[in-house]
Amino acid sequence: MQYGYFDNENLEYVITRPDTPGPWANYLGSPEYGALISNHAGGYSFAKSGANGRILRYVFNRFDEPGRYIYLRDNADGDYWSASWQPVGKDTESYKSVCRHGTGYTVFDADYKGIHSEAVYYVPDGMSYEVWMFRVRNDSDAERELTITGSCEFTNHGNYEQDQVNLQYTMFITRTLFAENRIRQQINGNLADYKGNVAVSDKGVTERFFGLAGAEVSSCCGERDAFLGNYHTYRNPVGVINGDLGGRMAYNGNCVGALSTVLSLKPGESRTIAFVLGEKDYEESGQIMKNYASPEEVCEKEVEVLKSMWRERFSHFKVKTPCPEFDTMINTWNAYNCFMTFTWSRAASFFYCGLRNGYGYRDTVQDIQGVIHLSPEEAADKIRFMLSAQVHHGGGLPLVKFNHNAGHEDTPEDDSYVRATGHPAYRADDALWLFPTVYKYISETGNIAFLDEVIPFANRDEGSVYEHLKRALDFSLNHLGPHGMPAGLYADWNDCLRLGKNGESAFVAFQFYYAFTILREFAAEKKDAEYLKYLEEKQEALGKKLIELCWDGDRFIRGYTEDGETIGKGTDPEANMWLNPQSWGVISGLADPEKARLSMDNVYEKLNTEYGAVLMDPPYHLHAFDGALAVIFNAGVKENGGE
Amino acid sequence: MQYGYFDNENLEYVITRPDTPGPWANYLGSPEYGALISNHAGGYSFAKSGANGRILRYVFNRFDEPGRYIYLRDNADGDYWSASWQPVGKDTESYKSVCRHGTGYTVFDADYKGIHSEAVYYVPDGMSYEVWMFRVRNDSDAERELTITGSCEFTNHGNYEQDQVNLQYTMFITRTLFAENRIRQQINGNLADYKGNVAVSDKGVTERFFGLAGAEVSSCCGERDAFLGNYHTYRNPVGVINGDLGGRMAYNGNCVGALSTVLSLKPGESRTIAFVLGEKDYEESGQIMKNYASPEEVCEKEVEVLKSMWRERFSHFKVKTPCPEFDTMINTWNAYNCFMTFTWSRAASFFYCGLRNGYGYRDTVQDIQGVIHLSPEEAADKIRFMLSAQVHHGGGLPLVKFNHNAGHEDTPEDDSYVRATGHPAYRADDALWLFPTVYKYISETGNIAFLDEVIPFANRDEGSVYEHLKRALDFSLNHLGPHGMPAGLYADWNDCLRLGKNGESAFVAFQFYYAFTILREFAAEKKDAEYLKYLEEKQEALGKKLIELCWDGDRFIRGYTEDGETIGKGTDPEANMWLNPQSWGVISGLADPEKARLSMDNVYEKLNTEYGAVLMDPPYHLHAFDGALAVIFNAGVKENGGE
Repeated sequence: MQYGYFDNENLEYVITRPDTPGPWANYLGSPEYGALISNHAGGYSFAKSGANGRILRYVFNRFDEPGRYIYLRDNADGDYWSASWQPVGKDTESYKSVCRHGTGYTVFDADYKGIHSEAVYYVPDGMSYEVWMFRVRNDSDAERELTITGSCEFTNHGNYEQDQVNLQYTMFITRTLFAENRIRQQINGNLADYKGNVAVSDKGVTERFFGLAGAEVSSCCGERDAFLGNYHTYRNPVGVINGDLGGRMAYNGNCVGALSTVLSLKPGESRTIAFVLGEKDYEESGQIMKNYASPEEVCEKEVEVLKSMWRERFSHFKVKTPCPEFDTMINTWNAYNCFMTFTWSRAASFFYCGLRNGYGYRDTVQDIQGVIHLSPEEAADKIRFMLSAQVHHGGGLPLVKFNHNAGHEDTPEDDSYVRATGHPAYRADDALWLFPTVYKYISETGNIAFLDEVIPFANRDEGSVYEHLKRALDFSLNHLGPHGMPAGLYADWNDCLRLGKNGESAFVAFQFYYAFTILREFAAEKKDAEYLKYLEEKQEALGKKLIELCWDGDRFIRGYTEDGETIGKGTDPEANMWLNPQSWGVISGLADPEKARLSMDNVYEKLNTEYGAVLMDPPYHLHAFDGALAVIFNAGVKENGGE
Repeated sequence: MQYGYFDNENLEYVITRPDTPGPWANYLGSPEYGALISNHAGGYSFAKSGANGRILRYVFNRFDEPGRYIYLRDNADGDYWSASWQPVGKDTESYKSVCRHGTGYTVFDADYKGIHSEAVYYVPDGMSYEVWMFRVRNDSDAERELTITGSCEFTNHGNYEQDQVNLQYTMFITRTLFAENRIRQQINGNLADYKGNVAVSDKGVTERFFGLAGAEVSSCCGERDAFLGNYHTYRNPVGVINGDLGGRMAYNGNCVGALSTVLSLKPGESRTIAFVLGEKDYEESGQIMKNYASPEEVCEKEVEVLKSMWRERFSHFKVKTPCPEFDTMINTWNAYNCFMTFTWSRAASFFYCGLRNGYGYRDTVQDIQGVIHLSPEEAADKIRFMLSAQVHHGGGLPLVKFNHNAGHEDTPEDDSYVRATGHPAYRADDALWLFPTVYKYISETGNIAFLDEVIPFANRDEGSVYEHLKRALDFSLNHLGPHGMPAGLYADWNDCLRLGKNGESAFVAFQFYYAFTILREFAAEKKDAEYLKYLEEKQEALGKKLIELCWDGDRFIRGYTEDGETIGKGTDPEANMWLNPQSWGVISGLADPEKARLSMDNVYEKLNTEYGAVLMDPPYHLHAFDGALAVIFNAGVKENGGE
């Protein structure tokens, strides 16, 4: 079933068939302002934190609603549709639409009854608000009058739990107002004193705006249930049906931004307007709206800036191989996705919808590796940030807050940290990821001086990058289990393996072994002879012990439970083959060529026999890239429009 | 706008017009198994805890979905509708329906195209599962073949946050299976070993079932998106449209229970079936289903038991006044609502949807007062329970867990309590509510021996009820503020007034004064002469001080902030008249007749001038009932069907 294709010229994924099996989403924006948008214009926006700074509502795991909707109403007969197929869901015989997910923008093209529309959603580079550029063209022979309505549903509070669960509070603290060309929504608006629209004192008001630029507002609505109507949904809002939004504002209850304008188009005529949305007060939003007075001139330029910015990033690494699908992935989409995780970690998606109010240590340090070659400066900044999230004794903060203040943070030893983050303890692997990441950064850029940069620790002290790495190694050395392997602690990446203080992880032990290799190179570079000798001796002893403890004849074990029971022996009836110890045996260099081949063959055997139907369709290729195991199979990537 | 009326004969609220401004809900069940149901069959069920034992999903503050839906499909032409107006929402010209909320049951009557249906939802007395009795009758001249489908959407986890937010976990731990006459849903089913359907070892599996009794299952579905179909909703599930649910079960993802049966009805013929739902394992659910093999015989009897039980409860107090609306409220609905809060406190509603995993101390102790005269034994049990939730030093646990284990509980002094409940501190008023509640219980029943019953404290110690009350007084005596009035602590009922250790609450001070009055009576009863003398002296001194500190010429103040600033002075530009100090001045007896009249007149004046348009429509009556202020106005109650 073909739903779309990769457009390599425009660097867009083009969804030609709208009824995708699930919502397919793009990310717009930056760490300051993020927005998820599906191919049905469903999604949500947030300022910095998806859990604590959420601006738009989204109902997860249901019907990909609500979203950033643009409705069109033909005033001649009252028929109406949406700029994206959903939420109105017109019959696809007469309603044609395409969604194009681009680099930092998403486009909806639609054609219905002789009206062509193009909606472009984006966050301008460096800005913390979003723009919905909307261009509509009359492709019919007669003059047409259309009412265009933009709508969004605000949260009643930036924190998802307050907004969704603490209704006895958040249903009573918001209101909306209309001013000039925009709806203003206020949370705790009563905490400010106003002179007209302007707050002269502000003890904690949060304000959002939703504005219309490039046309006059013909009607508006700030109250959700008045916009939709009882027993109506976003499929058929009464405000759209009536061609008049009614003007009602919210005082408590639920808030929307809904704005209509009436456009008359001669045959062939086209008009461009823009909806603008953000978390800004009256004066700031007013200034922003002024900038969009002529959307036709401004918006396309802003999208061009985004396109150029992304092309520049991608330009730093390009491949041309006999496999065009591979090229498409490496040159654009794999890189693009690496930037998505680099920017937003695991903090906001259609799955992650709260609970993670910050950067997970290992995830974030890992993800940096994906963008070093494309944007080394940004990568270096992130590495500095994560080094500053290392505790003075070398362990990594499991969760790093969005408002991280290096030198002043509390740690898992403190109840306050545990209460704030839900993380009660360190994980065995977190700080060990610094080794390959720092190593790849320096290898890629040649910036060996990076080792001497002085970076604070999260709670106290500061030290060079080299010192940070030494302390990371120390942390593991100070948290060994009974056999002399790193203890699993609260988790070792596999959250289900809570090996604790007395259980041990082979996976982490191999990372630990690898860390020695890397630190030895840096010690040599720095002519730190005594420390180098110490590392060599310790690593040699460690290596011998790890082979003794972990090599099980034809595979590496996974580790030991708190009770000393072995996990992952070849003779175990279940769970006798774990991937991470085998791959990290190779990556770390601990496995000699014979052990590497034996264990990898076992992995392949397991995958092919027990999971063969799921995973392995010939041809398959098993490659080691810089020690990482990669299995490449047919990705089904197509060139522009081809089948 | 008339939507319904109170039926005093059948003790039901009859909703004649289905498009109510919002969902109007009833409660079914007991503390063991609770279910909310709206007049659109929206709502959710839970075992014990609405926050931690939720069985059915509900999306709060949106469209009153999902729910307990019964669909009817006319197999002759494929037309379909629902037993309640929503979710299909047929045109009310041709589709007629009535919803009757009764005492522990809710009925949906519907008539459409010659088919009459009656759906009765209830939780059988003393049981922890629910029944949807469904009777359908062919009122047309021709034979009719109908496919009847019952459906519900399960949570993936009993805890609301795990189910709604931690999707990266809960989307991967459930599955459904079909066995005999029911869908089984398992959470963490992999933790058990099975012999066929029966678990032979069970390390933590949660199982629910949804069964059909009284007819053969013609098709079934256990997977939500297969039941609904992509881009379909509960308004138009493809399984219903097709007349065949398809048979797909869920393995991960989202689970439903959906069962169809085909009924052929001759003109005038009627059939009765039942859907049964609960959190039970295979063997238990099998036994339950056997009990409903003949729904026609069983269900009506079970509903009759509920009706009798409630009539018996109401029979203990009946009034007949010149105002029939007043009678309806006092005799039935006010009493019924008192039982709802008595049973479920503030832990589950369409507003309270998490965050409260237990009984709030003051709410629960207050609510007992509403049912003492109707069900003194149940009230006494609840009082014993709340006394056992008092800490040994006399303060009440702010939140009492559903699995409260008296003598073994931790307290706000412990981090573990704070982490588990979110409550970091005591509130000033909690334990003071024991005084009026215990007093009213003993007054109503004459059971003075209650004072000698020995009840444990929450954490340690035990003592007589009399001793518990003495310690409650001690708690307040040990938490006085700078002026010698009770400190406000974390809250004094008004959650927004956090007066802390140094702020003081007049409201609580008057409750405190009233506590002396009550305890004096008990001390006299127990001939506790020395203690009685002590109370008399202390109360007299307290009374003098409170008048001095709190009487502001024509009103009582609200209290003092932590900085010693007065709250609620007559000369304050805002917040100069608070209701609670005035009413509690009367209730406590602190206010002499002159002060009582002055302050009450002020209250009336304030209400009438500033809030007159909202509240006061003549005629109004201002009455003091046992010290409580009551304002009675037209309630718009109608007799059976009248306008």
